[in-house]
Order: sequence, then structure tokens, then C-alpha cells
Amino acid sequence: MKFTEHLVDKYKREWRQNFTHPFVQELGSGTLDKEKFRFYMIQDYLYLIDYARLFALGAMKADDLATMGKFAALLDSTLSGEMSLHRTYAAQFGISRQELEEAKPSPVTLAYSHYMLHVAQKGTLAELTAALLPCAWSYWEIGKELNAIPGAADHEFYGEWVRSYSSDEFGSHALWCIELMDRLAEGKSDAELARLEEIFLNTTRYEYMFWDMSYNGQMWPEATDSK
Amino acid sequence: MKFTEHLVDKYKREWRQNFTHPFVQELGSGTLDKEKFRFYMIQDYLYLIDYARLFALGAMKADDLATMGKFAALLDSTLSGEMSLHRTYAAQFGISRQELEEAKPSPVTLAYSHYMLHVAQKGTLAELTAALLPCAWSYWEIGKELNAIPGAADHEFYGEWVRSYSSDEFGSHALWCIELMDRLAEGKSDAELARLEEIFLNTTRYEYMFWDMSYNGQMWPEATDSK
Amino acid sequence: MKFTEHLVDKYKREWRQNFTHPFVQELGSGTLDKEKFRFYMIQDYLYLIDYARLFALGAMKADDLATMGKFAALLDSTLSGEMSLHRTYAAQFGISRQELEEAKPSPVTLAYSHYMLHVAQKGTLAELTAALLPCAWSYWEIGKELNAIPGAADHEFYGEWVRSYSSDEFGSHALWCIELMDRLAEGKSDAELARLEEIFLNTTRYEYMFWDMSYNGQMWPEATDSK
Amino acid sequence: MKFTEHLVDKYKREWRQNFTHPFVQELGSGTLDKEKFRFYMIQDYLYLIDYARLFALGAMKADDLATMGKFAALLDSTLSGEMSLHRTYAAQFGISRQELEEAKPSPVTLAYSHYMLHVAQKGTLAELTAALLPCAWSYWEIGKELNAIPGAADHEFYGEWVRSYSSDEFGSHALWCIELMDRLAEGKSDAELARLEEIFLNTTRYEYMFWDMSYNGQMWPEATDSK
Repeated sequence: MKFTEHLVDKYKREWRQNFTHPFVQELGSGTLDKEKFRFYMIQDYLYLIDYARLFALGAMKADDLATMGKFAALLDSTLSGEMSLHRTYAAQFGISRQELEEAKPSPVTLAYSHYMLHVAQKGTLAELTAALLPCAWSYWEIGKELNAIPGAADHEFYGEWVRSYSSDEFGSHALWCIELMDRLAEGKSDAELARLEEIFLNTTRYEYMFWDMSYNGQMWPEATDSK
Repeated sequence: MKFTEHLVDKYKREWRQNFTHPFVQELGSGTLDKEKFRFYMIQDYLYLIDYARLFALGAMKADDLATMGKFAALLDSTLSGEMSLHRTYAAQFGISRQELEEAKPSPVTLAYSHYMLHVAQKGTLAELTAALLPCAWSYWEIGKELNAIPGAADHEFYGEWVRSYSSDEFGSHALWCIELMDRLAEGKSDAELARLEEIFLNTTRYEYMFWDMSYNGQMWPEATDSK
Repeated sequence: MKFTEHLVDKYKREWRQNFTHPFVQELGSGTLDKEKFRFYMIQDYLYLIDYARLFALGAMKADDLATMGKFAALLDSTLSGEMSLHRTYAAQFGISRQELEEAKPSPVTLAYSHYMLHVAQKGTLAELTAALLPCAWSYWEIGKELNAIPGAADHEFYGEWVRSYSSDEFGSHALWCIELMDRLAEGKSDAELARLEEIFLNTTRYEYMFWDMSYNGQMWPEATDSK
Repeated sequence: MKFTEHLVDKYKREWRQNFTHPFVQELGSGTLDKEKFRFYMIQDYLYLIDYARLFALGAMKADDLATMGKFAALLDSTLSGEMSLHRTYAAQFGISRQELEEAKPSPVTLAYSHYMLHVAQKGTLAELTAALLPCAWSYWEIGKELNAIPGAADHEFYGEWVRSYSSDEFGSHALWCIELMDRLAEGKSDAELARLEEIFLNTTRYEYMFWDMSYNGQMWPEATDSK
């Protein structure tokens, strides 16, 4: 069994939680409240900036030119292409470029991005890859699952999301991350593999918290009298 | 007005939220549920290990020998002294060393520690200091406020917490952090000061989330049908 | 006076040393020993890999999307374009791809690249930029000076070097670095400016040592009896 | 064979070069020019500040509390103890505290320290340990070899150096580094072990360059007409 197969098998419950979350389900059925998606789009934009930083760290940490080059290409295409698509798509929901740039990250957005970034800076390229894998991989899988729902890919608002993440282009990025993880896991000691599992589990769970935060519009808690 | 005075003045509401949280209030009145404190102790132990890493990064990033030396002393005393006190104190709540070492960080513990660690690695010593300041400073202030409550310092279980964080020894550490922040903020541009404010605000809020997580025993969310 | 003008004015002697080094002079007159250039090409190839890592760190450290995007583009074009040109050019000197990939960095190559990389990781984006500036800027200036020598740009072996580094395309990269340095230096305190000067001076000197190492084929010292 | 035994066996020639360098030989025989030692002391003081930063990074990167604690203790004792001894010792050679603090690192000092620091930041704890090992270990071995020379430990000027580095206290630090290296090398893949060897070899060679620089009072090269 490949290491990545082992990961989703061992953490099946946490992995599948991301597919069954109401945000994802309602995205597929087209019934998702537009305000929830609007909240998601803004936070995802902020998230993507830090996700790009992970690619930069990947390029810095990689030992061979091919891996450096692929991380560099992912970084460049994220910043020059994907973020521009995000801005165009966001505009359809009435989110201006200014609103995107003045937006503040929620505590979950900060938590997830900074968890990955510190893991990447402190650790090995394998640890960095375990951190970024659940986002890339689960988005591709979710994209494909939603794309199989009749009408989902043609939905007025959410069709673009479904088409993007189920596309062959996105799939080839995700597949590269999966194959990199398997390659980097080879020959690692049990202690190192356990560390990779822990990171994969944590970012899989932060994925869930990100859907949950988006569904609930969750920002910083406020003190209340009732507590 | 000193920069640190400006910080607590500008973010008065978020800063004071940490004092009025029920966890803190009940710690002072001695009515706190022991299970809640037990949860807190374990997570705080894990937090402290990463907080020590911040001191290590401080020693690495500092430019002058005096500041390097003070961070080194804080790091050494945290790892050789404070953590040992934590283990002794934890034992009073029936928490064994093994339980401490096998414990897993909650999402808020991970979020808070990794936010600080990435900010510290990516940024300047001033940014690192803004990240660690709310914990050191608010604990000292809360310690002193609770110590003024009759009986709080002598409470069978929570007295030790109150005595520790209101002590002159802890106060001198906190004061050093405050003075370092003021010194490092001098001569900084407006953009840099705004960044320091943002970091201070975020870790002040993560302090609140840490109290809240402890009060509610909050681990990773589970998928439920009702959602 | 712009900060970058101040830098080359203050360190005129060290800056100009790079133009008058025999390696550079003989490159322009076309009289350079091909073995010296061969040694240079191999070490420069290794240097360029770490120089690309500086761009990755720049993308990670930058605060705004425009700067992140430009560093990302430089990283990507270095790894996908410039290194490929290096391999083609190297082949003209009988250096195979395998020889490039198995080559070991000289102590000066390691010193220069690791000085920049640590400065970049420990410091601010301004410090990172001060580290990478002398290479980009002095190559452009040297390229233009040599290009003004009749025949230099058409030289059988060295013409390509002269054309590359005097080109508008390379010039636009160098200019961006210069403008970034000036922008980042604005509003910095005297202590911070002094630190930027120190870094610029050190990498200007490492540039000289790199020419010198190439001219002398300098690898690690060997113990000898005569000492 | 332990990994560390394998290292000194494989790189016997480079390792032994450090013992036979004239600086070291003349330090043992007591004939070393005081000006050379003076140059060494100043550069070593600057080196030690960055060497301490490696311990800070070790405390940050270590996964277990025992290793974090030992790095923290080494950092603290270096900054509070060893550097103070250095200042006292330097005073015997007429080097004031001010001179130490205003001194500028030579290119070799910068090269060696920044090579280690970048390796430590980019890599694993094992790579960090491979970087710092040659200094700690070779100083202990050289200290013991020189201590066996009649009169060396009682020499008016150099006796203190010999006594310090041959002492049990210094030996216990060096031994801890050796054992840490052996422990961290266990279970590593061949590619990782090859990387550790490369780092050990490079810092062993930088040790030699440091002696050589001290013997020759080598600062930055100056442009000359004769070249």
C-alpha cells in the first residue's frame, strides 16, 4: 500500500468528514446560502496567499532541480493565475478587489495557514508536503464527487467551483503532490512516518474546521454575559 | 505614551476580555471545576514547549548579546525550571508525567503556538516580541488581580497558580518583555507599527480562545447529523 | 540621493573592484583562459540554484501580492529558463549536464550563497534584497561596460555572456531589484540602514571573491609541508 | 562502526589537517606569534556568537524535551559563561571589550558561521548537528593532544586555551554532540546519511580555513595591480 493510500485509510473518518460537511453538500446540491459562500471566498483568498508561501518554502527546501522547478511553477501560477481567477469569481458575488485586500483572516484561517507554515519552516520537505496535501487532494476529490451530481457543474454560482477543482489541470497538480508525498516517504524511519501522519491528520482536520468556519461565518469570539 | 500602553489602550476590549472570562473569574473565586483546570494544565504544558521555542528564536534573531543572553536564560529556565513545576503541580490533579507526554494539542493550542512561531520565523525580533507579549503580560496582570481577591492565593488547588503568576520573579520576566517591546518599537515606520499592533491583537485574542477552549474542553470538531 | 546611489557611492572602491578584476577584464577583451571560464560556469551554475532559493524566500517574506508575484516570476524563470540557458552555454565549453549536476561547490561559492541565505531567513525583506542586489546590479553594469568594448558581444565564446547580462531583459530584473531596495529602505531607522549597508558591502565583497576564485580555480585548501 | 567513527575514518585526511596546521602546532609548542593568536581570539569571539545561535536553533528544532533542554543549557552557558571567559582571556592579550564588540568578521568567519546557520535552518536536527560537530569535537581532541605536550597546559599565554578545551567539562559537551549525532543518524536513509557526511566534511574544512585565516590574518582581498 502506498503511503498516501495508508493515510486516507488510517484517517478515513476525518478524511470523509470533509466530503459530508453541509457546506460541501450544499455546494454540490446548489442550495448553499450565498452569504456563506461569500464568507468562504474571502477567507479562501487570504488562505491562498499563505498556501502560495508554502510552495515558496517547498522550492527553497527541495534538493533537486525538478522538484524546485515544480514548486516554483506552482507558486508562480498560483500568484499570477489562480488568484486572478479568484478575484474574477469573487466579483460575481459582489466582492470587490478592495474588499478582498482589506479583509482580515478569521482565527481558523490564521490557525490553518500558520500551522502549515511553521511545520514547513521547521521541518523537512516531507513534512511540508504532508501539510499541504489534504487541501490539494481533498479539493480534487470533492471536485470530482460534486461534478458527478447532475447539474452541479452548470450551477449559476457554484458551477465554476466544481469545474475548477474537478478539472484535469487541477488534478495534475494534486496528483503531483500525492506522488511527491509517496516518494518522500520512502525509506523514512517509523518515527518520521508517524510525524508525517500527525501532520496529515491535523491539516485534514483544519480542512474540516475551514468548511465549518465558512458555514458558520465564524470570526473571533466575543465576550458575552451569558457565559 | 509608550507603545505598549498604546497597545492595551487601543485594544482595551480584547485585552480585558481575558480578565473577565469565566475560567479566569472562577479560578480567582476558587469555584472552577477541577476537570476544566485539568484540561487547561495539559494544554498549557504543550503550549509552554512551543512558547520556549519562541525564546530560542528570540536568541537567534537578537542582534545584541544582552538580548540574546536574556532570551537564552528564559529558554533555559522555562525548560529546566518552569516545566518541572508544571509537572509537580499537574501531579496534584492526578496528571502523570506520562499523560502529559502523550497528550495531543487541541486545535486552539496548535493554532496559537504555530501562529506565534511562524510570525517569529518570518518576521523581525519586534514581531516575535509582539507575539509573545500578551501571554507574559496578561498572565502577570491576571495573577496580580486574582491575588488581590481574599483567599485566592491560599486556595487548596488554585493558590499556586495565583502565587506563581503574581510573583515578583514572573513579573520581572513580563516587565522585560514589555520594555523590550517598547525599545524595539522605537523608530519603526507606521507600516511596521501597524504590523506589530496586528500581531499583538491576534495573540491577545488567541489568549481568550485558549481560556475558552479550556473552559469548554474543546478538541477537534466531530461531524454530526444535526448540522 | 537614493539609498542605492548612496550604497555604491559609499562603497565605491569595493564596488569598482568587481569591474577591474582580471577575470572581468579578460572576459571583455576576449583573452580569458577558457579553463578559468569553465571553472566559473560550473560554480556559477551551483550558485544560481541557491540564488533562486533567495527568490523563493523573497516570495515567502514579501507582504504584498505584487512583490510576492515578482519574486515568484523570477524564481520560475530562473529555474525554467536561465538554468537551461546555462546548461546550453556550458555544453559549448564541453561541460555535460552530468558534470554540472555532480559538481561540488567551492568554499567561496558555499560562503557567498549561505551568507545570503541565512541573512534572508533571519532578517527582513529589505535585508534579503540588500543581499541579492550586488550580484544582479553589478552583472548588469559589467555586462553594459563590456558590451561597449568593440567585438566583445560577438566573441566566439564570451559574447553570449556579454549579450545576456547587458540585455534589456536582464536589465529590467536588475532595475526591479534596485527599485525594491530603494522602496524598502524608506522610513527605516539608522540602525536598520546600517545593517543594510553592511550586507550590501559583504555581498559586494563576496562578488569579488567569486571572480577571484574563478580566476584562480580555488577549491578547498590542502595541507602542505611547506607551511 | 558508529556513524561518527565512520565520519572521521572516511574524512581522515581533512580531519587530521586540523591537528597539523601550524597554528595548532605552534599553539601546542608555545611558539605561536601573539599577533596571530590575537587575530584568532577576536574572530573566534564573533564566531562563538553565531555558534550560540546554532544551539538556539537546536532547541527550536529538537522534538523531545531532553534534547531541547540540553541545547538550551549549552546556549545559556555559552552566552553567560564562555563568552565572559573569552573576554577575560582576550584582555590578557590587550583586547578590550570595545574592540571585541566593534570587530568585523573576516570572510572565512562569515562563511563558516553562515554555512552552519543556513544548513541548520533549512535542514533537520541531524543536519544541524553534523554542522556543529567538527568544531566541538576537534577542539576537544586538539585540546587533549596539546595537553599531552609537556608544558603546554602551563604556558603563560596559551595554557588557558589548552586547559579549557582538554577539560572534562568541555569534553562532556563534545561527547553529548557526538552521541546526539550517532543517535540522530540511526534509521536514516542512504541519501540522508550522504547529506550528513557532506555537511560534516564541509565544516571540517571550514575549521581548517579558520585556522589558516587566523595564521595569515586574512581579511577581505584587496584589488592589486600585479594581478
